Amino acid sequence: MSVNQVKREIPDKYAKQYGVYAGEFTNVKPYEAVKRPIKPITPHDSKMVDSIHDAIVKTGLKDGMTISFHHHFREGDYVMNMVLDEIAKMGIKNISIAPSSIANVHAPLIDHIKNGVVTNITSSGLRDKVGAAISEGIMDNPVVIRSHGGRARAIARGDIHIDVAFIGAPSSDEYGNINGTKGNATCGSLGYAMIDAKYADQVVAVTDTLVPYPNTPISIPQTDVDYVVKVDAIGDPSGIAKGATRFTKNPKELLIAEYAAKVITESSYFKNGFSFQTGSGGAALAVSRFLRKAMIDEDVKASFALGGITNAMVELQKEGLVDKLIDVQDFDHPSAVSMAENPDHYEIDAESYASPLSKGSFINQLDVAILSALEVDTNFNVNVITGSDGVLRGASGGHSDTSAACKMSIVVAPIVRGRIPTIVDDVQTVVTPGESVDVVVTELGVAINPNRPDLIEMFKDMKVPQFTIEELKEKAYAITGTPAKIHYGDKVVALIEYRDGSLIDVVKNV
Amino acid sequence: MSVNQVKREIPDKYAKQYGVYAGEFTNVKPYEAVKRPIKPITPHDSKMVDSIHDAIVKTGLKDGMTISFHHHFREGDYVMNMVLDEIAKMGIKNISIAPSSIANVHAPLIDHIKNGVVTNITSSGLRDKVGAAISEGIMDNPVVIRSHGGRARAIARGDIHIDVAFIGAPSSDEYGNINGTKGNATCGSLGYAMIDAKYADQVVAVTDTLVPYPNTPISIPQTDVDYVVKVDAIGDPSGIAKGATRFTKNPKELLIAEYAAKVITESSYFKNGFSFQTGSGGAALAVSRFLRKAMIDEDVKASFALGGITNAMVELQKEGLVDKLIDVQDFDHPSAVSMAENPDHYEIDAESYASPLSKGSFINQLDVAILSALEVDTNFNVNVITGSDGVLRGASGGHSDTSAACKMSIVVAPIVRGRIPTIVDDVQTVVTPGESVDVVVTELGVAINPNRPDLIEMFKDMKVPQFTIEELKEKAYAITGTPAKIHYGDKVVALIEYRDGSLIDVVKNV
Repeated sequence: MSVNQVKREIPDKYAKQYGVYAGEFTNVKPYEAVKRPIKPITPHDSKMVDSIHDAIVKTGLKDGMTISFHHHFREGDYVMNMVLDEIAKMGIKNISIAPSSIANVHAPLIDHIKNGVVTNITSSGLRDKVGAAISEGIMDNPVVIRSHGGRARAIARGDIHIDVAFIGAPSSDEYGNINGTKGNATCGSLGYAMIDAKYADQVVAVTDTLVPYPNTPISIPQTDVDYVVKVDAIGDPSGIAKGATRFTKNPKELLIAEYAAKVITESSYFKNGFSFQTGSGGAALAVSRFLRKAMIDEDVKASFALGGITNAMVELQKEGLVDKLIDVQDFDHPSAVSMAENPDHYEIDAESYASPLSKGSFINQLDVAILSALEVDTNFNVNVITGSDGVLRGASGGHSDTSAACKMSIVVAPIVRGRIPTIVDDVQTVVTPGESVDVVVTELGVAINPNRPDLIEMFKDMKVPQFTIEELKEKAYAITGTPAKIHYGDKVVALIEYRDGSLIDVVKNV
Repeated sequence: MSVNQVKREIPDKYAKQYGVYAGEFTNVKPYEAVKRPIKPITPHDSKMVDSIHDAIVKTGLKDGMTISFHHHFREGDYVMNMVLDEIAKMGIKNISIAPSSIANVHAPLIDHIKNGVVTNITSSGLRDKVGAAISEGIMDNPVVIRSHGGRARAIARGDIHIDVAFIGAPSSDEYGNINGTKGNATCGSLGYAMIDAKYADQVVAVTDTLVPYPNTPISIPQTDVDYVVKVDAIGDPSGIAKGATRFTKNPKELLIAEYAAKVITESSYFKNGFSFQTGSGGAALAVSRFLRKAMIDEDVKASFALGGITNAMVELQKEGLVDKLIDVQDFDHPSAVSMAENPDHYEIDAESYASPLSKGSFINQLDVAILSALEVDTNFNVNVITGSDGVLRGASGGHSDTSAACKMSIVVAPIVRGRIPTIVDDVQTVVTPGESVDVVVTELGVAINPNRPDLIEMFKDMKVPQFTIEELKEKAYAITGTPAKIHYGDKVVALIEYRDGSLIDVVKNV
């Protein structure tokens, strides 16, 4: 058993294979990006195939291989279920899947796991049913949870070797020029899929909207695509927008947002040309509104807003408060529409967005990030993957990436959720190490990480209640009592990779 | 001595190293695209360096390495001379250079060759002074002439291993997000440079216009760039537009253009959704005007026009006659401006444009191409690299790429130039094999390649004089007499690579 820098025990077997977390930038070292095989296409060749079945046959997909998907269709995705059903029907077994994330709509995956079709998974996250099943221990091999930047790194470095990427393409021409802004299942940015297309051995574009050649704009180019298959539907537009971000009326969330906005506007980062990222959580989203007011009042404009883009950011840009939106993923339909129409709303891939081993990612240039949390502990470690019951139900997302790279990371969370404390002695699972987290904002006030004395000095006169993180935890426990310890089993059901590829934690069965 | 499929003698030494030409698609086989080393950039790192000198030091450039440049600045390029001067000053020797092409402005290269700074060259072309010097035999190693698609292939496959790419960047931010549409030396598309950035071990952006982060649109992304250096000027805008394409008034060229347009409009390819590429030569350009009239008269619209883009194509698109311009290079300033403003004027890289080993290039989807020639022989072989005196002065460009891939390739040329025949028994140098050339158009009439009986049938009632290629040659020789044989020396001064990497010809010293 190895103990890593955030004091988590990593079983030797995995510690040896992955290494253990030893600091934010310790493992950032030169490497060689993978080479990939190319099957050239001559003028006489066609890339069109008649069905998913035929595409699978053409790629030579077989037992033991790795396939990938993207999660830009969110709860509206049809592609992963469609492909896995066909693979199962063809009797192919022992497949590793490497989707950029997994949603509730992918519950049929549970049967494919039980039947031995899928035996390895890497993903950013696992939602309700699939997460619960994994936490019960239905897989022999642990799921590998990777951040968005970590996944891009893993693919570029060959830690994930994708044999075949199946890419849901909102629109494609017959040669595989793809974008996400035209078609029936428009999702906007294809930032996560772009990386799969760039590095996978073979790429199958699955589309329901075949457009005349050449399709532009080109998010994924014909030079990255081997086969194109047209199906009836790749996604449900209402599912793509599902859970889409509405403005909160919850007074607790509004207070958190107001405090978080204050932390930004009272900081030295808040000046013309500053940059920010907000998540899609209720409080995180609401920050935009308070920020907007301050930007107007103080005549401050942002150079760019980054990340998963929401309509709240689109509105700020339309008002001239933000120069550019840099977009790896769209959380709602208006954002997808904006990316199609506005040249200053710019699509980027996951490697540019957040890979720790790229020649520079956008998050490195980011001033401020607002991030949500399921739990924060007194070492500022953050959990965004397991519930208070220890069950997998969240997603790593860009949390650890952005926190490590930006100049000031702000984690927003209510002090308690129902009868469950959010600020705790020890998070169930560490996804983001405390050294990356600068300010924790709750409805009762903020705690600044002692490893940022510059921020403590900067905020000494700020008109927001300030506490130590221990004091916040005490306030939480005063409401909820000390939380009962969860009884985990002995089986490791998930490995939590830090963005550099080392293990920051493991999750055991419940 | 090997003899290749177009009956050219290739010295064994080179035949062994490169293979010899054996047919248009014979050598199109699966391969592995190169891997590249990545030096990751953390949030604390800067990519800015103070000078070309410092950039060279940082990259560790040393004797024997290969560096590359792009030719989008044409006769206005300052970057190659600037970098080579610095390398010479630093005492670095035995450098291989791999610019996408070489212009007259690069005459200082001659001294760097003589001084042993530059000992190997690969390029699409060689203009007057440099070409003459090479043909005199000033280099020990032959220059390797590659087509635009062939160069992309060579870089992707590792035949050209670029240690450091120096990329003239009309605009860049401090992280190396580059485009060619903003700045002082705007050149529009950076199609050739994009490939260098994608595959080179290290990339230095050399800019005179540093813009706030993030620079968009992103032609070359920060994830491909290691260092950024700001200099006073990277290019002369008037030189970039030099030799820019004016509409010809030469009656011979106009007649050729009229005939060539006729070949297109009388063909079965001329229908809604057709696609075409025209070069930038006088007659080729003039084709656009005749084509325009026919498109209006017959209500035919093109889906896309491809290639080096000229204002003539931009005008067609503005009139609604062409849906999209697909742009690897801009031949004039209005084209660069159009690419900046019009989302349907779309930038692509050289690999997408023309690589024979990519997963499908744009030329594969092309119906008709108009191409110029210095010489055409009675086997339809085309020379675009050596003059009638055997001296290197032209450029391979996309000639062999487009000819091989499009559905109908039309070579336009006057029957004689001055007292020199253009249609000859044997071209001085084969760049494009006859099997790729479908129709030769002169001011006296056209010759259709007998290997295209479908075209002979298609054009049997066309109201343009038709001859065999031998007849056209006789008409030329009747004017000029049989041309005297050139006395070449024994030294191989240039290898002419076919797009697949095999040798289609060699050039000896004069």
